[in-house]
Amino acid sequence: MRIVLDKKPGSPIYQQISDFFSQAILTGILTADTRLPSMRSLAQDLGVSRITVENAYARLEADGLVASRVGSGTYVLPVLPITVSPSSGDDSAWPVWQQGPLARSKRSLQDSLFRHLADGHGVTDPVYFSGGIGDPCLFPVREFGRVMQRVIRRDGMEGLSYGEPNGYLPLRRTISQVMTSLGICINPENILVTTGSQQALSLVVQALLRSDDMVIVEEPTYNGALDLFEALHIRPIGVPVDEQGMCVEQLEPLLQTYHPKLIYTIPNFQNPTGACLSSSRRRALVALALRYNVPILEDDFVGDLRYDGCTQPALKSLDPCGTVIYVSTFSKMLMPDLRVGFLAADGPIYETLVNLKCLNDLATSNLTQRALNSFLSVGSYQAHLRKTIRIYKKRREAMVTAVDRYLNGCVAYSVPQGGLFLWLRLVGQVDGGALLRQAVDAGVGFAPGAGFFIDKSAGEQFLRLNFAYQTEASIDKGISRLAEALARLD
Amino acid sequence: MRIVLDKKPGSPIYQQISDFFSQAILTGILTADTRLPSMRSLAQDLGVSRITVENAYARLEADGLVASRVGSGTYVLPVLPITVSPSSGDDSAWPVWQQGPLARSKRSLQDSLFRHLADGHGVTDPVYFSGGIGDPCLFPVREFGRVMQRVIRRDGMEGLSYGEPNGYLPLRRTISQVMTSLGICINPENILVTTGSQQALSLVVQALLRSDDMVIVEEPTYNGALDLFEALHIRPIGVPVDEQGMCVEQLEPLLQTYHPKLIYTIPNFQNPTGACLSSSRRRALVALALRYNVPILEDDFVGDLRYDGCTQPALKSLDPCGTVIYVSTFSKMLMPDLRVGFLAADGPIYETLVNLKCLNDLATSNLTQRALNSFLSVGSYQAHLRKTIRIYKKRREAMVTAVDRYLNGCVAYSVPQGGLFLWLRLVGQVDGGALLRQAVDAGVGFAPGAGFFIDKSAGEQFLRLNFAYQTEASIDKGISRLAEALARLD
Repeated sequence: MRIVLDKKPGSPIYQQISDFFSQAILTGILTADTRLPSMRSLAQDLGVSRITVENAYARLEADGLVASRVGSGTYVLPVLPITVSPSSGDDSAWPVWQQGPLARSKRSLQDSLFRHLADGHGVTDPVYFSGGIGDPCLFPVREFGRVMQRVIRRDGMEGLSYGEPNGYLPLRRTISQVMTSLGICINPENILVTTGSQQALSLVVQALLRSDDMVIVEEPTYNGALDLFEALHIRPIGVPVDEQGMCVEQLEPLLQTYHPKLIYTIPNFQNPTGACLSSSRRRALVALALRYNVPILEDDFVGDLRYDGCTQPALKSLDPCGTVIYVSTFSKMLMPDLRVGFLAADGPIYETLVNLKCLNDLATSNLTQRALNSFLSVGSYQAHLRKTIRIYKKRREAMVTAVDRYLNGCVAYSVPQGGLFLWLRLVGQVDGGALLRQAVDAGVGFAPGAGFFIDKSAGEQFLRLNFAYQTEASIDKGISRLAEALARLD
Repeated sequence: MRIVLDKKPGSPIYQQISDFFSQAILTGILTADTRLPSMRSLAQDLGVSRITVENAYARLEADGLVASRVGSGTYVLPVLPITVSPSSGDDSAWPVWQQGPLARSKRSLQDSLFRHLADGHGVTDPVYFSGGIGDPCLFPVREFGRVMQRVIRRDGMEGLSYGEPNGYLPLRRTISQVMTSLGICINPENILVTTGSQQALSLVVQALLRSDDMVIVEEPTYNGALDLFEALHIRPIGVPVDEQGMCVEQLEPLLQTYHPKLIYTIPNFQNPTGACLSSSRRRALVALALRYNVPILEDDFVGDLRYDGCTQPALKSLDPCGTVIYVSTFSKMLMPDLRVGFLAADGPIYETLVNLKCLNDLATSNLTQRALNSFLSVGSYQAHLRKTIRIYKKRREAMVTAVDRYLNGCVAYSVPQGGLFLWLRLVGQVDGGALLRQAVDAGVGFAPGAGFFIDKSAGEQFLRLNFAYQTEASIDKGISRLAEALARLD
């Protein structure tokens, strides 16, 4: 035990010891039946006499906080914990370095991921259109659990120690096969397994950008990327998105003016717009990146979830020489808590990224990687993909039908060819914040557009709806609630 | 499938399709018995005629790479893969942004973690003194595996979806109880669960430092921290370490001159020296941090592994108002692949760190957190700690005995009161790199001192030996081999 003891007048050591315990007991941290350290060992740890500790424990016993059981030790008694009053919110109590910009709470990504709806609105069956993930109910959890159990039995200690920093080799081989079967040829030696695609993003940013550097993004773009840039003091420059994806024609003057260090793009079923970059723009984008010597980060978070139209080549496949870093994930298609994504990079940057991965968290859980590798094969992935596409396609249609029925004339949108999202523009002057409050009251959540824009005010008229996460019946109910909420604003 | 197709003369579409598959098969990415996509679905995906795909597959079949099975599809045949020649190492083939500083391989942390000894030296029983972790054999792997299985059965889907970004609340409560039982009072609301303590470090650095900012470190200090600073363009300033830890008396002029944004310290059983910061220096350090408005990052990676002497209060316990951010881990004491560490912070910085955690990888595996929480209690942790201390203490003694016996007069050292490491200074002029090569030949690895210094040349005379990872017999053997290696240098 490491209790702070001070040689100050008026506060004898025994009292400082008993104060430590009584505070921990009264605030509920040490709960009933917790055993206190033996008097002998505590005296030795603290370098005080045994009498001092006996006095401290006697005082705790007299206060009714602990009881000694003969031959067994001293145990905490059940007490009603004191409720600690929440901090006053007065920043001036903190050290100066903790005041100012740090004090801003930045929860936008967290909000969209974890807090779909406020509690306590009395709605028993809220509909969540706000999240960024697929439907976890499609994932065979129990089967995966059994695979994990088998791996623990099979690999024992080895499966539970640090693995290779770039990822478990058999898993990298499987990823290579799965990607190749999808048309994107990537060698296992160029794959780095990450803790979800968010980590892949974060590593690339750490490797290539310094504070105040510029990055090209689609506008709107993934809020988690914008939040990451802001947190790391990196300055995004937006390029508009139309139905064919990023307006690559507008890119060249920006490259000339701002000398950005990275182009971040989501070419397939873009987050949040759902747009898919056309084939000619893909070639133009890679050519520009080469000409202006700027790396491309290709975020392909749901590239295989296509419901109509022809496939487009990955930017990575068009890249002749290590200009494109490709990022994808199994969290969206399989299950979120897997926390397994990957990136693929050619050239010296690969080693830099592996090193940064190591410096960020040493390695992604070896056990999870081994279990995923046992679970995954080209055949099983393709089968799961086909099933998922069948279901999500129907849900997309259910949402389009519901929007046309309940929100006819109030919104404009394009039907995305794949992915998870429908991106609505509200027609007429609507306050997005006010709509969200009404919607939550009505029992439906959505991701407000502002979070996806560099200039937040440009997003006021937009909402992102996730059609993949809910059943068709819930989608219909959710959109009708959204229409109610909109009506109440008028 | 997303195959790149070009409308170029002389290369018909069917040939481009067959080229894609033949390359994937010949380089071994698509292995025998992999099923190619059905002709119908591939034609649809690529927006080409069915005849085109039939021609492509016919060509692959004629080349002996695939075979069609009636009513089942087209499958890859076993072929001898072409060995891809490794890249020439000529950086000029890469885009310009990939040349220069990026090309430097920075594998020091990885080396010390994952590559203890070079392969193929013909030593059948190598001794590893190089790693930074405890002995994973002490961890009840099978028991933990059973707990994990129980959690999968118990929590099903919920255990496998995204958890709270700051960590599973019951686990934060347990950590709070364990820490309080060790004398460090921390509330669950101030705990952030991280992917190992390395991630906690990385988050704090991202939150508080920008490129070119200064950080105070002990010199020598943890190589993983130095590597992290270097990777993120942060400039470390060293304060010497003596037997009482960081020479805090030398700190004030550095604070005045350099205006550092952070003080990084390992007060207990410092990595690599094993020194423990004295009580008076602890108080002086916290007072200086307050006076000069600089946050302290307290890395307490093995603070509870004490074998002699009195405990010292944590800096966090001496901090009146949110100046100290405390970091610790379960990876060292329990098992590495858990990848569960945590930090404790008071004030607005806590929210900033939670946000950054979210932006770095969304959340630490919920399943692992739930399993750890089921496994961990104050009682079980204390019991495991007592057992570990008993064993490591003996190993420390075994190493000291062996060093005195085999290396008498060749090295100087202090016996650490706890932790994992013995820090040896070589007496006389010895080339550290040459010694490591000899040692590896003799079948023993160590962590060379250079990696722990800002000025690498200052570390030439030092080696860090991990005494916790090996049995006593291996320790004796390893030190005698080290003596042999040293003798060969003369």
